[in-house]
Amino acid sequence: MSQHLNTLAERMIPVVEHEMREVLALEQKRGDPFFGMMHYHMGWADAELLPANVNGGKRVRPLLCLLACAAAGGDWVQAVPAAAALELLHNFTLIHDDIQDASPTRRGRPTLWQLWGANQAINSGDAMFALAHIAMSRLLDRDVPAPIVVRSLRRLDETCLDLTRGQHADMDFENRTEVSVEEYLAMIDGKTAALLSLSAELGARVARCDADIVSRFASFGRELGLAFQVRDDILGIWGDEAIIGKSAATDIVTRKKSLPILYGLSRSAQLRQLYQGDEDGTAFVTKAVDLLEDVGARSFAESYEQRYASSAIGHLEATQPQGNAGEALTELTHSLLNRRV
Amino acid sequence: MSQHLNTLAERMIPVVEHEMREVLALEQKRGDPFFGMMHYHMGWADAELLPANVNGGKRVRPLLCLLACAAAGGDWVQAVPAAAALELLHNFTLIHDDIQDASPTRRGRPTLWQLWGANQAINSGDAMFALAHIAMSRLLDRDVPAPIVVRSLRRLDETCLDLTRGQHADMDFENRTEVSVEEYLAMIDGKTAALLSLSAELGARVARCDADIVSRFASFGRELGLAFQVRDDILGIWGDEAIIGKSAATDIVTRKKSLPILYGLSRSAQLRQLYQGDEDGTAFVTKAVDLLEDVGARSFAESYEQRYASSAIGHLEATQPQGNAGEALTELTHSLLNRRV
Repeated sequence: MSQHLNTLAERMIPVVEHEMREVLALEQKRGDPFFGMMHYHMGWADAELLPANVNGGKRVRPLLCLLACAAAGGDWVQAVPAAAALELLHNFTLIHDDIQDASPTRRGRPTLWQLWGANQAINSGDAMFALAHIAMSRLLDRDVPAPIVVRSLRRLDETCLDLTRGQHADMDFENRTEVSVEEYLAMIDGKTAALLSLSAELGARVARCDADIVSRFASFGRELGLAFQVRDDILGIWGDEAIIGKSAATDIVTRKKSLPILYGLSRSAQLRQLYQGDEDGTAFVTKAVDLLEDVGARSFAESYEQRYASSAIGHLEATQPQGNAGEALTELTHSLLNRRV
Repeated sequence: MSQHLNTLAERMIPVVEHEMREVLALEQKRGDPFFGMMHYHMGWADAELLPANVNGGKRVRPLLCLLACAAAGGDWVQAVPAAAALELLHNFTLIHDDIQDASPTRRGRPTLWQLWGANQAINSGDAMFALAHIAMSRLLDRDVPAPIVVRSLRRLDETCLDLTRGQHADMDFENRTEVSVEEYLAMIDGKTAALLSLSAELGARVARCDADIVSRFASFGRELGLAFQVRDDILGIWGDEAIIGKSAATDIVTRKKSLPILYGLSRSAQLRQLYQGDEDGTAFVTKAVDLLEDVGARSFAESYEQRYASSAIGHLEATQPQGNAGEALTELTHSLLNRRV
């Protein structure tokens, strides 16, 4: 495997990190109760708002954006504000997701709403959303022409509309007994794929690509996001216990409505009966997994995953990704598609 | 009194309303569960998402923006997207405020979170925030140059940062026993004044005013907002029961930390004692109002109100507001400053 991905990631991620710290006024507002909540969420402060440096996530979206920009022949340094905006937008959605899912922890630490209450966490997410836009408008400072900046901001908000539409559907599914495969795919298209699509698209926009190449990058990111999510669904049932270090079949235990499960429920009366009952524990999981295998839910999901994955790679190749960044982008794509955890 | 305000409001408000309906895709998405929640909040749909046309608020911010634009010599039609953006941003904050305040009703109808739950209401507010930005970016379609559009979007988000900082402080005050007058004024500066300031400022920006006139309009809107909020605080205690149709002294009953009350608490040990006790009902209200009068809390607040009001009028006059729109803007200002409910 080539080392271009590691080399470029090690150069790019600290630059994005620095950009985000500037937008979130880390130095000037350290310890400030309002900004401090956001600094905590980003991993730059602890719960007492003292300096910390903990895992803030993999920064996949910024990397996708900057590699796409460079692979399209652009200067990735110009795209840094867009990369920061994407990561801040992603983190705004995480803050609100954690409230909506009642998640007590994220990346091993208490979530914002756990520490400061849901009302302050809603507000902190809102502020982070505003800051994502401010980050994007800094493209002007890198000599990106104003019309491209307006367009990038517009696409940010259109994507956010996709995200919220997907989130609406996801929460709605929890209250419904029947959800079709089509509805599910539309939901993950908004909730997961839209932002990965925008990440690649904005890299190409900053690189001043023609409309058809911009559109190729967008499709690449979108299909990558869909493949990624379907793989996540497969790992949620058939994930390797030894690798993920916790019981597999988590999605069965929580009765999550993921792709293989929705397919299984639509095909197996026995599975529907099992899900309507109040059985749980190991016996429930074993029976459910067996029934899913019987109706071919695993291979159904794998066929979707493979279709999305080949489509993603097809779109990426069609952009003719250039140089080391092109190789790194291909490598990143394969590592996201083949992940086992 | 001149009729310019009524005449212009009757022309302008339907145009803004039409713009907002386009941005919120009213015709295409009528009955859609995701957009429908926002249509309901705006007063365009009932709880079953069937067409309705109920009071959606006074649209003060759009009016301020469009009148400022015209009074500054601009073409107010060009500023319509900004006016729509301001109103949508305001409504996004109302959706989240209602969750944070646990308010069951708004404008006589159940709030979003009451009908669809807090999680969906958080998401609906997020979508409305994105749509406020999309509304603003439509300035491009009215031939506003891209650099002014980027600047307007940037100011929208900086203002949203002021709003969320104010909201953070307001929620923080609820958990504190002592809040200084200075802290309170900083809070209302963000929570109330910032958006009125931006409304006037953006009108002037679209009219292509020089920086010093833009800044005058911004100061006018800000001081107007501060005067408006302090008057609200006074009416919350000494409001005319016959006019407002409910018990006066609401802010005493709810033990709200408003300007006269914070001043009173800082000056009267008896009032502090009364507030720390568990007395309530009419006796509590009567005693509290008497103590507030004794320490001069009413005239203290009135002196602030008058100072902000004269400052607002001074800034407005300094912009030399032109024509019928100028007269209407002056009229709107006086009606906001002198309101009795």
